[in-house]
Amino acid sequence: MAQAVTSTVAPVKPLPAYVNWKNPDAMIVHSSSTLETKRGAFGSSIVTPTNQLYIRNNLPAPDASIVADRDSWEVAIEGVKNPRTFKVKELKSMGLETTAMVLQCSGNGRGYFPSKPSGTPWQVGAAGCVIWSGVPVRALTEALGGMADGMQYMTGTGGEKLPEGLDPKSVIVERSVPAKAMADALLAWEMNGEPIPLAHGGPLRLIVPGYSGVNNIKYIKRLAFTEAQTDAAIQAHGYRVSPPGQKGDPSQPSVWEMGPKSWINSPAPENGSVQAGIAQIKGVAFGGVHAVKSVEVSVDGGKSWKTARLVGPDLGRYAWRQFVLPVKLEPGTYTIACAVTNAEGSRQPENRMENAGGYNNNSWRDHALTITVV
Amino acid sequence: MAQAVTSTVAPVKPLPAYVNWKNPDAMIVHSSSTLETKRGAFGSSIVTPTNQLYIRNNLPAPDASIVADRDSWEVAIEGVKNPRTFKVKELKSMGLETTAMVLQCSGNGRGYFPSKPSGTPWQVGAAGCVIWSGVPVRALTEALGGMADGMQYMTGTGGEKLPEGLDPKSVIVERSVPAKAMADALLAWEMNGEPIPLAHGGPLRLIVPGYSGVNNIKYIKRLAFTEAQTDAAIQAHGYRVSPPGQKGDPSQPSVWEMGPKSWINSPAPENGSVQAGIAQIKGVAFGGVHAVKSVEVSVDGGKSWKTARLVGPDLGRYAWRQFVLPVKLEPGTYTIACAVTNAEGSRQPENRMENAGGYNNNSWRDHALTITVV
Repeated sequence: MAQAVTSTVAPVKPLPAYVNWKNPDAMIVHSSSTLETKRGAFGSSIVTPTNQLYIRNNLPAPDASIVADRDSWEVAIEGVKNPRTFKVKELKSMGLETTAMVLQCSGNGRGYFPSKPSGTPWQVGAAGCVIWSGVPVRALTEALGGMADGMQYMTGTGGEKLPEGLDPKSVIVERSVPAKAMADALLAWEMNGEPIPLAHGGPLRLIVPGYSGVNNIKYIKRLAFTEAQTDAAIQAHGYRVSPPGQKGDPSQPSVWEMGPKSWINSPAPENGSVQAGIAQIKGVAFGGVHAVKSVEVSVDGGKSWKTARLVGPDLGRYAWRQFVLPVKLEPGTYTIACAVTNAEGSRQPENRMENAGGYNNNSWRDHALTITVV
Repeated sequence: MAQAVTSTVAPVKPLPAYVNWKNPDAMIVHSSSTLETKRGAFGSSIVTPTNQLYIRNNLPAPDASIVADRDSWEVAIEGVKNPRTFKVKELKSMGLETTAMVLQCSGNGRGYFPSKPSGTPWQVGAAGCVIWSGVPVRALTEALGGMADGMQYMTGTGGEKLPEGLDPKSVIVERSVPAKAMADALLAWEMNGEPIPLAHGGPLRLIVPGYSGVNNIKYIKRLAFTEAQTDAAIQAHGYRVSPPGQKGDPSQPSVWEMGPKSWINSPAPENGSVQAGIAQIKGVAFGGVHAVKSVEVSVDGGKSWKTARLVGPDLGRYAWRQFVLPVKLEPGTYTIACAVTNAEGSRQPENRMENAGGYNNNSWRDHALTITVV
């Protein structure tokens, strides 16, 4: 069902102190660890400014002292022929790659599940398109003699301080992804042209293009190629796509690769009514792990579609594209929707896949908007 | 001559109030209207963050009230078959394009002229690579019946409030460029994903890709196709490439199209000494009005050159590219330099063209750095 954007927004809360440099006009503050970009704040310029990028932290960030001397942060590389530990300063001498990619929380779109799963009711704004620079994981792995034999996963461990008195496995941020994801992965120290802010995982973050947010480990202190997935709760039970009513377990799919997804940012109901005439229907589209091939727009709730124009430079297969379709609208009510098709020919689905956690919602129907033209 | 980066930097001044949101660690404050990005603050992520982009204002910005209601800002389009005035809100319904481009003050590099021309002694930081979104000028012109007959120039007029008691022509920001530049020009309302900040020309700025900064008129209130160049002082006498010792006049070249240029950002002397071993020599390169074809790096002051690798997504012909060359450096002193060749085959020149105003410095030798490896 098409939904009005503002329907589930909580009362306005102030920005938490640790991210008081975010643009308050652009953000929805769900809690101190969950901030969302407003749909109407996404512009047309492809890259999401750092000051309006969403925040979703599983644990509080480490002390700010770790970004006072960024080059001294250490990461252990394990599961390779010659394991060792590196300082960021050393990593910077070993290679450089820059990748633009969509960073998206696996729960983005949860707010459109009628079942109201527990977790933040994100609409579209737990996502952004971000440019990262760092050393390619494959270059690092080659420098250490390659992966050790039999390794199936790439496991990253975050450097957050763990709460006392709890089983570390129940709280540690440690995630495993298939080892093949290393091909395009980075250990990144820079984001959108600046050292990565503490709130976004600086001084060093694992970037796994095409994989949802939780797999992009902040404050990474250990990168290990492993035979099995970690048994940390966040991997074994959390972030599993389980049937409604069932708890997550390792037999169910983990939130790894993202699917093709798009949504319209303008016109948006939060920006007021739309005047009759030519409207430029604009939005963003990404292909998951494949490039965007095309985007279609409907103004009649999906009965008919027109191909939109892709706008601006193409930042690569993991980035989103901006699209626009000029449409002449007479006064009335319209349900506007969009659907992307990626380079592999997969089209964004009409319906969400129901699941207990409210993950991976890329339904075009859920993301449709109802607008009133006067 | 290769120069140490910090040699001409003035004592640290605080950020002016109107741009107190800039990153103080990234900026050199020359005056309240001239702020430069530090060489060591340019990252590797292609797009220059707004909070560290340079500032150069010919007049104080208009009152902030003009960005409180951005959609109501008006611009008059003249020198077309059917001239008329538009509000920004109307422009937004007429088309959309997004262009990444190097914005560079024509005096960038003036600090390397031994003749010490008057004006800000910019080193490399009066430049950035920025993404703009707006309506293409050509779409707007077509909608108004096309250019009127006989028009040779595109003339933009800024909306700054003029100081009282002076001849308006002596102070108004009004610039003419060849009419052909309209092909890729925008009337832009968005910069790096956000509404253009007041300090950078919001709510509406004329963007002329490939042309130096002064031609990109802030707070544009009039865009006119004209038979002749404006007789405003900033065009007739200012920003002319005149021989040393001579005042500018209309017979001399204006600062229009930029030339090919590159410089190294890392290692930079301001970031301390360099340790022996593999250094990743990194920098930015742009081709002027043509795309970057290749970049060469020298560590012996230009005696020998090696081709660098271009890094990250290509944002189009008007954007800069990041480049990197890994070089093994033994202890000693090195003069590191770089030179770009554009798609038309023009190579960045070794020497500056001497001129009274210190404009258009793209000498690779002037931008070389001396580093000490320990």
